[in-house]
Amino acid sequence: MSVVNLGLSVLGEAVAAQGTAVVQVDWRPPAGGDAPAVRALTDLYGLRSVDIDQANAEVLRRLDTGVPMLVDVRAAADVVPGLGDRTLLHPGPPIAWDDVCDPLRRSMRAAVVAEGWAPDVDEADTLLSTGRVALAAANEHSTVVPMATALGPSMPVWVVENAAGGTRAFAPIGQGSGDVAWMGRESPAAIVRLGFLRDIAGPRLARIVARIGPVDVFALAAQGVQMGDDVHMRTQASTNLLIRSMLPAIPTLPDDAATVAFCEYLSANHLFFLTLAMAGAKSLTLAAEQVEGSTMVTTMARNGTTYGVRLAGSDRWFRAPAPPVEDALFHPGYGPADAGLDIGDSAVLELVGLGGPATAGSPAVAAFLGGSMADAARVTEAMRRICAGESSRFKLPTMDFRGTPLGVDVRRVVETGVTPKVNTGILHAHAGLGQVGAGVATAPAAAFRDALLSLQAD
Amino acid sequence: MSVVNLGLSVLGEAVAAQGTAVVQVDWRPPAGGDAPAVRALTDLYGLRSVDIDQANAEVLRRLDTGVPMLVDVRAAADVVPGLGDRTLLHPGPPIAWDDVCDPLRRSMRAAVVAEGWAPDVDEADTLLSTGRVALAAANEHSTVVPMATALGPSMPVWVVENAAGGTRAFAPIGQGSGDVAWMGRESPAAIVRLGFLRDIAGPRLARIVARIGPVDVFALAAQGVQMGDDVHMRTQASTNLLIRSMLPAIPTLPDDAATVAFCEYLSANHLFFLTLAMAGAKSLTLAAEQVEGSTMVTTMARNGTTYGVRLAGSDRWFRAPAPPVEDALFHPGYGPADAGLDIGDSAVLELVGLGGPATAGSPAVAAFLGGSMADAARVTEAMRRICAGESSRFKLPTMDFRGTPLGVDVRRVVETGVTPKVNTGILHAHAGLGQVGAGVATAPAAAFRDALLSLQAD
Repeated sequence: MSVVNLGLSVLGEAVAAQGTAVVQVDWRPPAGGDAPAVRALTDLYGLRSVDIDQANAEVLRRLDTGVPMLVDVRAAADVVPGLGDRTLLHPGPPIAWDDVCDPLRRSMRAAVVAEGWAPDVDEADTLLSTGRVALAAANEHSTVVPMATALGPSMPVWVVENAAGGTRAFAPIGQGSGDVAWMGRESPAAIVRLGFLRDIAGPRLARIVARIGPVDVFALAAQGVQMGDDVHMRTQASTNLLIRSMLPAIPTLPDDAATVAFCEYLSANHLFFLTLAMAGAKSLTLAAEQVEGSTMVTTMARNGTTYGVRLAGSDRWFRAPAPPVEDALFHPGYGPADAGLDIGDSAVLELVGLGGPATAGSPAVAAFLGGSMADAARVTEAMRRICAGESSRFKLPTMDFRGTPLGVDVRRVVETGVTPKVNTGILHAHAGLGQVGAGVATAPAAAFRDALLSLQAD
Repeated sequence: MSVVNLGLSVLGEAVAAQGTAVVQVDWRPPAGGDAPAVRALTDLYGLRSVDIDQANAEVLRRLDTGVPMLVDVRAAADVVPGLGDRTLLHPGPPIAWDDVCDPLRRSMRAAVVAEGWAPDVDEADTLLSTGRVALAAANEHSTVVPMATALGPSMPVWVVENAAGGTRAFAPIGQGSGDVAWMGRESPAAIVRLGFLRDIAGPRLARIVARIGPVDVFALAAQGVQMGDDVHMRTQASTNLLIRSMLPAIPTLPDDAATVAFCEYLSANHLFFLTLAMAGAKSLTLAAEQVEGSTMVTTMARNGTTYGVRLAGSDRWFRAPAPPVEDALFHPGYGPADAGLDIGDSAVLELVGLGGPATAGSPAVAAFLGGSMADAARVTEAMRRICAGESSRFKLPTMDFRGTPLGVDVRRVVETGVTPKVNTGILHAHAGLGQVGAGVATAPAAAFRDALLSLQAD
């Protein structure tokens, strides 16, 4: 008995053979035998594949070789393109207030108060529910925001330039941990923290960046991967590398209590690098999405209600309900009934070879996934099945310095039924209690299937 | 044909059988068939082994569970016990000026000038060669110094306390890279750097440590091991963790150009953690060496001329000529003819589960050893053959979180012929050009053999 080795080159035969009973072989029909999907795959792996593969190679090149440079820290209003007055940017695909989930509503109310548009969260709710504060998807403004972040125009953002791609991308500087709005909190402390970011952290980071010069974001991330970061759930090493490079500028800041508070914020925030990495990733996907005729995914983003996918060459969103976060570990006293759905734009990292693709090298994430490095390696291997290439800059020591899987091809996702997994936090679903756990969110297959079908020849 | 499985429990039989021809089996007689050594091993693995194993277990416990805490940074003269006037501490076993190697002489002359005992290095040479500056082995004063460091009494040292062991140990704060005395330089810049450490870095570090409180040195080292440090050749991650913990104290330092220079020194010095780890290790070996009747090694130190070993329960040095540094990579333009011999006290790290024992987890060291993680794993496995236990705090992700080998047993060293390997720098042998390469130094077997024989019953 020989094993059926289902590969892309034999897909045609496999499709033809799918009625045949196959025994004792770990084989499933492509796309689970879903006839429209199989037709689309046959089309997209068929004669058109020459052009598609060429377009995909160009997408890969842009994702792999672009060099995101941190050049500035500015208020969002000063730099984010097309940001209207009284507008909040939010994660995931566009959404109306009525559909916004509880933690994101709280974050939005906190942002409205921090912007000075309302004196308290009750008034903020009125403004939001009556449309007097507009909502816009961050991803449609060259911006990505983590978890339940609502980004107001006064908030400081990383400004990252990708010269090769001619793109600029933005992400808010991190809010830190604890009682913070991006975790779905609208407490006085969470609102104060937003003011701290605007008035104290932002201006100081701007001075630091001006002094230490453009920072090669992914050079730091690449070192971080060598040091156990997946650069998504874990950014300890890259954060520390960034902070050490900032150190000579610290004594040039104002000699006041605010600077001490700023240093305490930096020192306590081991996810500080997260949003910078996200801005770097977005600057690459912005370049990638200009390529026509590709099957590569350039956006995966969730707003806590809806999961949205976009492909290169198109600004169309393919949506499915946001999934729950599974394989979850909860803080004491909480459980699945408390868990909000998957939320945030951070999955942009999974599109550039970080996060899930880099999990095999991260002992800290392994500890979370089951404990052994083999558990971690499985996440990377799953991503390898649906990625079109390998990173030439993010190398996994535990896989003898092989590159992380890079570039999600929607054909492979639908063919294998493997959708990207994202390690993420869990917010309280309705009580505004912030983070209550963490787990693994599996992207919904339906969004990728719809994206695939849209590419089929008429 | 069955394979001879030479283990400790069958040593007696193996010795009896050593005249028998053994073919196609990877077996060598213990101690290479060296008759006095075999007799000593037979004695020390025989009836006496019950007491020895108990003593060794106590040594292991002290090495594994002591908690070195950084409590202060002070001038050596203020804290190092028994440090005489006009005395320089040096690495390795005690040595007379006439026998001091060239790079260490240069470092000593630089230290004499920095201490203000002589106006220039020529005068310093006169003071040293006429005995008007005394030399003392740092290890005999609860101190360890890296490479060719000469430590004068005004120099700042880390003060590390191991409360469980009732010990305090010291090591100089790192000089950084480049034109520096610990690499065998006596240039004006190297002397200026010593003054910078005394006048600027030391006092600022003292203020920082006073503010951030006692620092658990090996908690940082343990995180560093998870992040690719061997915490000897590579201390990037632990350095960054330490610096991030120091960050809130930086704005409380004097608001002057010297503080900027201090921050630049911190930011550029990725080996900053090295000497702190050494002081931590020494605080543990000081506790271990109080145990009587053990076969455990508590000192391995080299002065560039002589390699010295000491065992628990004794202050006797067992000496052999310092070995060359092999498997070397040289800076362009240099080669073996330029290479000084193995030097420094940093091998104390190899006695507490860091450095060589932790190599399997360090991609950066792997890159240096041949490139693959398998190359790195071999170093750890070699140490496992001669170590009596495993660290419960230093865990290797690449070996499924197994502890690093801990505690070198001189019986195993002589039995296997495997001596500790130390990854180390190479200094120019005679021209004062500083570091010219790096490589692996293999400890000389003769020193361990003599140590073993000294334990034999009369």
